[in-house]
Amino acid sequence: MAKDTKLTLTISCPDRVGLVSSVSQFLADNQISITEANHHTDLETEWFFMRHEILLDSSLLSAEQLKQKFSVIAQQFEMTWNISPASVKNRVILLASKESHCLTDILHRWHENELDCEIVAVVANHKEMEKFANWYQLPFHHVDFKQDKAEAFEKLEQVIDSYHVDTIVLARFMQIFPDSLCRKYQHQVINIHHSFLPSFVGAKPYHQAYQRGVKLIGATCHYVTADLDAGPIIEQETHRISHSDTVEDMVLKGKECEKQALARGLKYHLEHRVMVQGNKTVVFAN
Amino acid sequence: MAKDTKLTLTISCPDRVGLVSSVSQFLADNQISITEANHHTDLETEWFFMRHEILLDSSLLSAEQLKQKFSVIAQQFEMTWNISPASVKNRVILLASKESHCLTDILHRWHENELDCEIVAVVANHKEMEKFANWYQLPFHHVDFKQDKAEAFEKLEQVIDSYHVDTIVLARFMQIFPDSLCRKYQHQVINIHHSFLPSFVGAKPYHQAYQRGVKLIGATCHYVTADLDAGPIIEQETHRISHSDTVEDMVLKGKECEKQALARGLKYHLEHRVMVQGNKTVVFAN
Amino acid sequence: MAKDTKLTLTISCPDRVGLVSSVSQFLADNQISITEANHHTDLETEWFFMRHEILLDSSLLSAEQLKQKFSVIAQQFEMTWNISPASVKNRVILLASKESHCLTDILHRWHENELDCEIVAVVANHKEMEKFANWYQLPFHHVDFKQDKAEAFEKLEQVIDSYHVDTIVLARFMQIFPDSLCRKYQHQVINIHHSFLPSFVGAKPYHQAYQRGVKLIGATCHYVTADLDAGPIIEQETHRISHSDTVEDMVLKGKECEKQALARGLKYHLEHRVMVQGNKTVVFAN
Amino acid sequence: MAKDTKLTLTISCPDRVGLVSSVSQFLADNQISITEANHHTDLETEWFFMRHEILLDSSLLSAEQLKQKFSVIAQQFEMTWNISPASVKNRVILLASKESHCLTDILHRWHENELDCEIVAVVANHKEMEKFANWYQLPFHHVDFKQDKAEAFEKLEQVIDSYHVDTIVLARFMQIFPDSLCRKYQHQVINIHHSFLPSFVGAKPYHQAYQRGVKLIGATCHYVTADLDAGPIIEQETHRISHSDTVEDMVLKGKECEKQALARGLKYHLEHRVMVQGNKTVVFAN
Repeated sequence: MAKDTKLTLTISCPDRVGLVSSVSQFLADNQISITEANHHTDLETEWFFMRHEILLDSSLLSAEQLKQKFSVIAQQFEMTWNISPASVKNRVILLASKESHCLTDILHRWHENELDCEIVAVVANHKEMEKFANWYQLPFHHVDFKQDKAEAFEKLEQVIDSYHVDTIVLARFMQIFPDSLCRKYQHQVINIHHSFLPSFVGAKPYHQAYQRGVKLIGATCHYVTADLDAGPIIEQETHRISHSDTVEDMVLKGKECEKQALARGLKYHLEHRVMVQGNKTVVFAN
Repeated sequence: MAKDTKLTLTISCPDRVGLVSSVSQFLADNQISITEANHHTDLETEWFFMRHEILLDSSLLSAEQLKQKFSVIAQQFEMTWNISPASVKNRVILLASKESHCLTDILHRWHENELDCEIVAVVANHKEMEKFANWYQLPFHHVDFKQDKAEAFEKLEQVIDSYHVDTIVLARFMQIFPDSLCRKYQHQVINIHHSFLPSFVGAKPYHQAYQRGVKLIGATCHYVTADLDAGPIIEQETHRISHSDTVEDMVLKGKECEKQALARGLKYHLEHRVMVQGNKTVVFAN
Repeated sequence: MAKDTKLTLTISCPDRVGLVSSVSQFLADNQISITEANHHTDLETEWFFMRHEILLDSSLLSAEQLKQKFSVIAQQFEMTWNISPASVKNRVILLASKESHCLTDILHRWHENELDCEIVAVVANHKEMEKFANWYQLPFHHVDFKQDKAEAFEKLEQVIDSYHVDTIVLARFMQIFPDSLCRKYQHQVINIHHSFLPSFVGAKPYHQAYQRGVKLIGATCHYVTADLDAGPIIEQETHRISHSDTVEDMVLKGKECEKQALARGLKYHLEHRVMVQGNKTVVFAN
Repeated sequence: MAKDTKLTLTISCPDRVGLVSSVSQFLADNQISITEANHHTDLETEWFFMRHEILLDSSLLSAEQLKQKFSVIAQQFEMTWNISPASVKNRVILLASKESHCLTDILHRWHENELDCEIVAVVANHKEMEKFANWYQLPFHHVDFKQDKAEAFEKLEQVIDSYHVDTIVLARFMQIFPDSLCRKYQHQVINIHHSFLPSFVGAKPYHQAYQRGVKLIGATCHYVTADLDAGPIIEQETHRISHSDTVEDMVLKGKECEKQALARGLKYHLEHRVMVQGNKTVVFAN
């Protein structure tokens, strides 16, 4: 009950004088207190982004009434906006392949209440992942991508849709999402790529990194788009290596970057801290 | 002229509903645009901090009129506040001893317009520093601390006061400021301590770090208070070392931390991004 | 079988000319190849440290014969030395309290073959940890420290000894080891302390860090000695925070440091990369 | 005089059993002590790399005699090798354009004896750099690249050759070296590129990074080859940024990466810690 009074308000719209004061006046008039506030103005596009964590405790408004009243201001300023009660959890499905480190890292953080969401199922094209889903008492779906890929993606889409998910996490899924799914789930699919993008797009990035002789490896958490590994970046991480690291060592050290970048990126996404602007993101990190 | 229209507004006061809206309403009513905004509420003390970068370009108010009008709101909310025009530069004096890396780093950044201030003089207890002051065409004062320390500090105080400075930077000054000066120049004296405080307070921190066998060394930029190395921390930096690093290696690698932490800490201070709260700081870093 | 031919040779002794050549001559004479070599001379103590990964594949010697033959050189140079076949795995017991992040991180890395050891059991003073032990099919022992601590440590010692362990990992165990156990298991007990030592020794380090207003938090992996949080440091990690981080945020961000520092420190220990010298360590990290 | 007894021995050759023991036996037989030793075997190419810091203090050999005697072993193992007395300093020329931060950073480090070399001259295509050369009492040469580039490079080559330099540092030189000069000065030209290569090759990398929306920027220190920004990487550094950083902010923050990566990379090069292997480097960092 109490949790229904905690909400996140996100706004993006053309920048204009009076915008901040209208919003904060509205909140003050309705006895809504602000516990965290972030603004950003993109100077190139003159676009404004705002995120507020608010409390309705002293307000007479319910979440529904708030939405209705706020829509008037929103229209006036041509806002794209969202009000999300903390009590309504983001529904997340996890897709994996045969590497388990990102999958189990996310599952354990969720189990420990580090990630504010409801994980609804695990899908993998390797059955070895089933035991992890079982332990966390989650349904598991095996989809075989070794045969007919189109058919496999159809089955995957059915599974995803059957759960009415908000977010699809590719926890080292290793299959390239078809364009149609990228469009259908725009800004809902989060991938972890095992390189410091835009370096080493595509397959075997650690091998590419080894061949190039870089002194730092990395990982990139991004939204999936039809362009391979080119979607809006949410978070990145790097780790120092040396000539003595083999590809296997790089894979091992890279796992740390992957887990960190994905966990932080997903957390920001779930807390409505990420706002997409063209092919870039505004991330009100905390 | 144009620059007079760019100002920074900083506020700290007890947290209250309506605070943000009053300020932003005031700015909007006076056609003042906001180019950067940061808030922070300290939940322990229920204290509110705010920093705005604002532009008077479209406003009818001058900076002076703005201050007068704003003081009404300020009083109402019991604000500690400040409005600083970008055109009024912070006057800075640099104090050094015989290590030149922090001194020259600050001087070069200032010369390259990375630090928005007016450096007015260099003081050192080693004459070797004079050549650096000369090159940047700054007055140099030699104060000898080898003899009578009390007398030396009196002379130092006279030099400082003769320049009407806003900020005193101890760029590896290596003399302990007497209590009276700490009080007189409260929150105006910025020191760089060559350890990751609160580890290794006092003399020879790299020797202490070597003896303890730490795997990371660090540096801390903080305001000077009467308690040695215990003032409010503005910025810190660490650097990885190993068993193969001698004390000399640590001194060398530590210099990088010192330069980074001091340069960033001083920059935040000059841009009014640092607000002291008890023995801690709120830093609206960018 | 093949694995018996892979060994690690570690040496520490007074530094002397001819030392390296005697060892490498010995290896060459016996057709032993070196796959990784590290040396370190401590200039203060004139002590020499060496670690070799070697292969017996082309040698006529067995591991046993190697030890016998090498003992002659070892005696001549007054070496403390060890030859460990890769096939003989370090036996590890994990001790936890009620925080599971370090425990499950270590367990998952072990499950994924990132840590070359045999984990033999999990002990905790909170029964909630049992489910994790079960999933990895490990025996679990509950020891209650809420009542008689001396009795609890006696029981703990019995459990530890019943498994003939080589290494005891305090994965956020939160109980202070009595002096007698510290001495009995010298350089065998690895702790993760949730601060950047020597800052914030003892209880509630994140609260201490919050009060001090540091801008980076950290974690330290070290061998346990009778002096609380003062044993030889193996590995450390830091993470940037800001004024907006509450103690709870710091706890959350600190977990990342703890997991990283403990996982790396334990890995170095298991691979015989850590050599203790007084209250410091030589770590031949890779 | 004493300094003539300190040397660095570097070796690369096909890996073979007996190699290390032959070298260390040779050193021991001639009463030469080792103060730092590093080995690396590249498993792909089965190539061996070794670097020794040695002292002739107790030896009867002079540096010259050492070279003659060692050449026998060198031939036997088909070594590429080098013996460099610490007393013979690397002659370095600095090339800059109009950005001074890397130039002055290198000059100040050299002035403070952090870089063991002899800087012989500064060349720039902007006259504003002359004052920095003057202060350090170094000859300055202005080469104008705005007109005929081929002519300018001819003049540059003459200047370089007139100083008999060992190393050419492109401290943000911003002109693409012609193939002929790349070949002539192979592994002698060190560049700092203002991106995390292989991302953002070529012009305006910060603009490219801004457009791509990366969350970390970087810098790369590498040997110059005929392939633009594709030579062997010596050192890299990254720095976290956010959506609120403009291109100008990124340029400012990137300078820190550039200074760090160039200073470390050059230091490694001057101390004979860098060995090139194909298009990669072995760096025996300390």
